[in-house]
Formats: sequence, structure tokens, C-alpha cells
Amino acid sequence: MTLDPEARLRQHLTQITPPNQALKETAMQRELDLAKPRGSLGRLEHLAVQLVSIQNTLRPRHQNKLIVVCAGDHGVVDEGVSPYPSDVTIQQIANFQKGGGAITTLGRTVGAKVLLLDVGINGDLPPHPGRIDKKIARGTQNMAKGPAMTREQAVLSILAGLETVLAEPEVDLVAAGEMGIGNTTPSSAIASVLTGMTPEEATGRGSGLAPEKIAHKAGVIKKSIELNKPDPDDPIDVLAKVGGLEIGAMVGVCLGGAMRGAGVVIDGFIGAAAALLADRLSPGLANFLIAGHRSKEKAHFAVLEHLGLRPLLDLEMWLGEGSGAAVAMFVLQCACTHYNEMRTLAEAGVDDTVE
Amino acid sequence: MTLDPEARLRQHLTQITPPNQALKETAMQRELDLAKPRGSLGRLEHLAVQLVSIQNTLRPRHQNKLIVVCAGDHGVVDEGVSPYPSDVTIQQIANFQKGGGAITTLGRTVGAKVLLLDVGINGDLPPHPGRIDKKIARGTQNMAKGPAMTREQAVLSILAGLETVLAEPEVDLVAAGEMGIGNTTPSSAIASVLTGMTPEEATGRGSGLAPEKIAHKAGVIKKSIELNKPDPDDPIDVLAKVGGLEIGAMVGVCLGGAMRGAGVVIDGFIGAAAALLADRLSPGLANFLIAGHRSKEKAHFAVLEHLGLRPLLDLEMWLGEGSGAAVAMFVLQCACTHYNEMRTLAEAGVDDTVE
Repeated sequence: MTLDPEARLRQHLTQITPPNQALKETAMQRELDLAKPRGSLGRLEHLAVQLVSIQNTLRPRHQNKLIVVCAGDHGVVDEGVSPYPSDVTIQQIANFQKGGGAITTLGRTVGAKVLLLDVGINGDLPPHPGRIDKKIARGTQNMAKGPAMTREQAVLSILAGLETVLAEPEVDLVAAGEMGIGNTTPSSAIASVLTGMTPEEATGRGSGLAPEKIAHKAGVIKKSIELNKPDPDDPIDVLAKVGGLEIGAMVGVCLGGAMRGAGVVIDGFIGAAAALLADRLSPGLANFLIAGHRSKEKAHFAVLEHLGLRPLLDLEMWLGEGSGAAVAMFVLQCACTHYNEMRTLAEAGVDDTVE
Repeated sequence: MTLDPEARLRQHLTQITPPNQALKETAMQRELDLAKPRGSLGRLEHLAVQLVSIQNTLRPRHQNKLIVVCAGDHGVVDEGVSPYPSDVTIQQIANFQKGGGAITTLGRTVGAKVLLLDVGINGDLPPHPGRIDKKIARGTQNMAKGPAMTREQAVLSILAGLETVLAEPEVDLVAAGEMGIGNTTPSSAIASVLTGMTPEEATGRGSGLAPEKIAHKAGVIKKSIELNKPDPDDPIDVLAKVGGLEIGAMVGVCLGGAMRGAGVVIDGFIGAAAALLADRLSPGLANFLIAGHRSKEKAHFAVLEHLGLRPLLDLEMWLGEGSGAAVAMFVLQCACTHYNEMRTLAEAGVDDTVE
């Protein structure tokens, strides 16, 4: 019997095992024993303990880093919410395939495997080994005039991201990146519906919208929510009505990462909106999440706070693509290596008699 | 004719060439042309431009990373300013030689060469290929009872760090780390003398001093300054009277980095105090500096502000050794790789018509 897509998704969700709390105690004790003043490695120590519990191992791992760049277009771009035309989505994916994008460069720098995942680009590219084609539609519909997607499309987009992560041989750390002109608009809509922020509070400059056009963008978001009436208690309904195909795939990447027992690194605002949806679909998922950085996009920090997360880095980045997550993965690497490779005070023969 | 040490130091200082301002313009233009919204990589862009000007090349480099861990002991530990006994200095250096310390681990993680430089450990270790012996004294004198060093010792300590950096075949990025029980005490004294902060404002917990002992520590610093009367306009006098041998070596690492046209990454509070001395010895040196992170040590941020620097990372670390600089070096690596390896909008065939 073949399950329908939503049943298949529900089936996947039952496979998420919560992080191992008992191992946390052991890891915290090791941090106390290592040859350094207690607590002096700050957040690196907390990250090591978190990865121990997520990965369910006393040798936390960073070696297999995966960044899935989910791509899709947005009908709502017709409303003038982005400074760039939709064509830039496919142009940038072609650029990424040649290794010339920010995320391909930074992914390479941190030693991550970068996969491109087309779930909704409005256009066709010849097959490429670095790109997975799971196209569900040629972009979403304009949410200012009706639902962005059908419910089934939304479910399929989540499954596309999730099953991409499941298909990887090894995953220790994973992040969802994105390319999709216009995608801060649905992200702000999702953030508004799920957190109670007003559309105005949830709306920022995206990829550099002129300040005088932000009120218009917020208005489009407000109208889309009023028209489509997404049910805040049904994350799939929210994704379908005011979301995006690549945002759904990013939700799936978060869920797939948790299924694999990997640390899930959030990139920017779009990733945070996707993570919020993922946490609503699978309560407790936030325990697998690490907020990679604080983006300059207006509502990013508020969404992270809503998830109980504090960003690791603040480098004033707002590019997206997964770029902030890529840089942050190195911090997680440092969390692993100090934990695994430092000697304890006893092993090092260091006097631990603190006055 | 052999120059006396201070003349040798002055001779070195004349060899520092200011960063190339003209190249900055070219680099800023390239950042505008790369295939991303303008400014969207935030501080990575500024760092790339800074490294272009420091290294005087349009292909900024990170490949040769060097961390010089300067080690020395402090007579002032007799005053009860540290929770750890002085013996921990030599014990940790022995641990570092085996690769089991935080800095050796994190240095390895970021791909840096980690050199240990003994300028003042109070004890002897058998020769080791990872350690350079330029011991000037077996620790400083107790500055609460008289000058920590002679002026010549202070100069020799600077030369030790400086000439260690000059002896390296290639240096693109360099940081001074340290190991020296008690060394936040002279660092606070230096910060107080050079910035005008009171000893109370400049004094923090160091490696974890009990909160109730901090007032005592500040009192020792106040007494040391009053007794020795360091001349704030003479950085060598300040270093000699209320500094430390490894702090002098760290000053030298900063100066040597600038001579080599390398980016100089500041680690924590002790490194910031050393950088402040270096900038006073060679005005304009701050242009070569990158503040790696914001340490939890109380006066660190204030000293960085005094240098006109903003820390890159805030991971709540306060270990020292060079650990924060090691993590930050990866951010500089990302600055180089995105700048060198991303395609321009034109090369990528991305529409750059922004509405």
C-alpha cells in the first residue's frame, strides 16, 4: 500500500527520537574536567553538550556537513515586493552550479557538501550533478490573490527536503539554505501567523528593498493573510496558503536532520521561518536547532527568540543562501574538536586546586 | 656595529609600511560587483577590504595562519591575584606540547601553525620542536613591590615576539596567544595606565577569581601603579614596570605581524592590552588589527573600543591562550574565499537591474 504524501510525512515524523538527556550529564562533566578554567570556552561548551545529546554519542561529530540549498520562485513577486526579478533565481542556481556563489564558496570553505534542490524554480536547467530535481511547480501562485500552493504541494515540498536529507550517506550537521527571489515575503507572512507579530513587525528589507517600499510589502503580506486565512494551528495550511515551495523543502531539511540525529543549523530569516514551521509540525524539534547567526533582516531575531534560540554569530550578514549557517558550522566544528581532543586536567597533569 | 636592543627595536619599527589605501578602493568595487546584493555579506566584506589593504594584494590570503603562544610567569601572583598557582603555566605548556590544550586543538582545527614561545616561564622544560626558547627571566618580579622588569628585559621580550614572527617563512594572519598565570593583573594595570580607566574599572575575574577577591586584585594593581609610576607616554616604561614578559612578546607579535603585512588578530584581554602597547609604540598599528572576539573579561571591550575596534565574535569565551583568535581566523578565511572565489554579477550572468 502506498501512503498518500501527508500520511508519509506523518510516518516520517514518528521517527524523530528526542535528544539523549542522560548523555548531557556525562558531557557536562567532561567539560568540567578538561584542562581549562571551568566554563571558559563559553558557548563552545554548550554546543558540544548539545551535539552530544542530539547525535547520541560521546564523540560529537562535525565531519559530514550538509547544506541543502532549496530553490523556488514566488508568484507574489508580481506585487513588487522584491528589488530583483524572478529570473535571478534560476540565474543564481546556474551560478551556484559553477561554484561561483556565496554559498558554494563558503560551503567549500567550511568543508560542507552543498546540494542544490529545485522544488519550484520557474524555468528549466539542464541536468547537473550538483542539483537534485524534485520540481513540484514552476513557482507558487500569487498569495495576494489566493493560496500560494495546494495542501498537497506543500506536503510534497516538505517531503522533498526531508527525503533529500534521508538519502545522504552520513549527516552530522545540516543546514537549509535557499534561493528564491521574493521569499522573505512569505517568510514574514509565516512569522506573522505563527508568532502573532503584525505584518509590519514581521516585514523587513529582504534582499535590499528600498525603505519606502517596505510598507507596501507589509501591506501585501497583510492582504495575503486576510484573504487566505491560514490556520495558525495547522502548519501545513500556513505553508500552503502563504508559504513557498523552497520554504517547505527547508522545513523538510530541518525535520530530516532531526531524524538523522544531526545538529540542524538555521541560516537567516527564511530558515528561521521554516524552522518555526518544523517545530510546530514536530514539537520539541527546537532541541535539534542551532541558530547560526543574527541576520540583519528585521524579524529574524524575534523568530529565533520565539524558538528559544540565541544566534551564534553577528556578522551583519543578510545574504541568505545558507551563507551564515556555513560560517557558523565552523563554530560547531570547534565545539566538537575541543571536546574530543583536549586532555582533561588529570591527563595533562595540571594542578586543578583552585583557591 | 651591534645595535643595543632598544635601537634594534626602533630599527624594526621603521620597517612597518601602512596598509595600502588605494587598493581599498579597488577591493570595495569588487565587493559591489560580486554576485550578491550589495553589502549583504556584512563584516566579511569589510574584512576582505581590510586584508587587501594590509596585505597589499588583490588576492587576500589566509593560508599561512600563525598563532604564537607567549608564555611567562608573574611575581605578582604572590599577592593572591589568581585562583591558580604559577606552576600551572609550565604544566599547561607541557600539555600544549602534547597537543592537548584548547589552543593547540582549536589552532589545529582552523589550520594554524601554533608556536610556543617561552620568554619567562619560572621553570625548565626539555627542548621540544614546538617550543622556542627565548627565556629572558624566570618570571617577572612582584610589581606590587617594585618594577616587574628592567627596561632592557621589556625590550628583549618585545624583540622575542617580533623576531619569532619575522623568522617564519610565510605569514598571512597572525595572533598572539598566551599562557601565564596571573597575567590579567598586569594587563589591567596596562589598560588603566594607557586608557585612564581606574584600576577598579580595568579589573575582572581573570581565569575565574572569586568575586569577593576582585577588589583585592584591583587594590594590588592600584598599589603597583602608584609605587612604580609608569610613564603613560612611554609604552616600554609601562610594560617594564607593570607588564609581563609574555605580554611584551605579544606586543612584538603584533609589530612583527604588521612588518610582515599580515592581518593581526587580537584574542582576549591580555592580547588587547598588548595591542594597545603596540599601537602606542607604532602609531597606526591599529589598522593592522582585527579584534577576534569579545571576551567575558570585564575591561576587554573597553580596550578594544579604545583601539577603535569591534570584536567579530561573542561566544562568551574567556579562556585566553589565543583560543578566541583561532576561531575568528576562520571568519577571516571566509572573508578571503568569498572575495577571491565568488563570481561577479557579470561573470555569473545574473541580472543586476535593481528596481
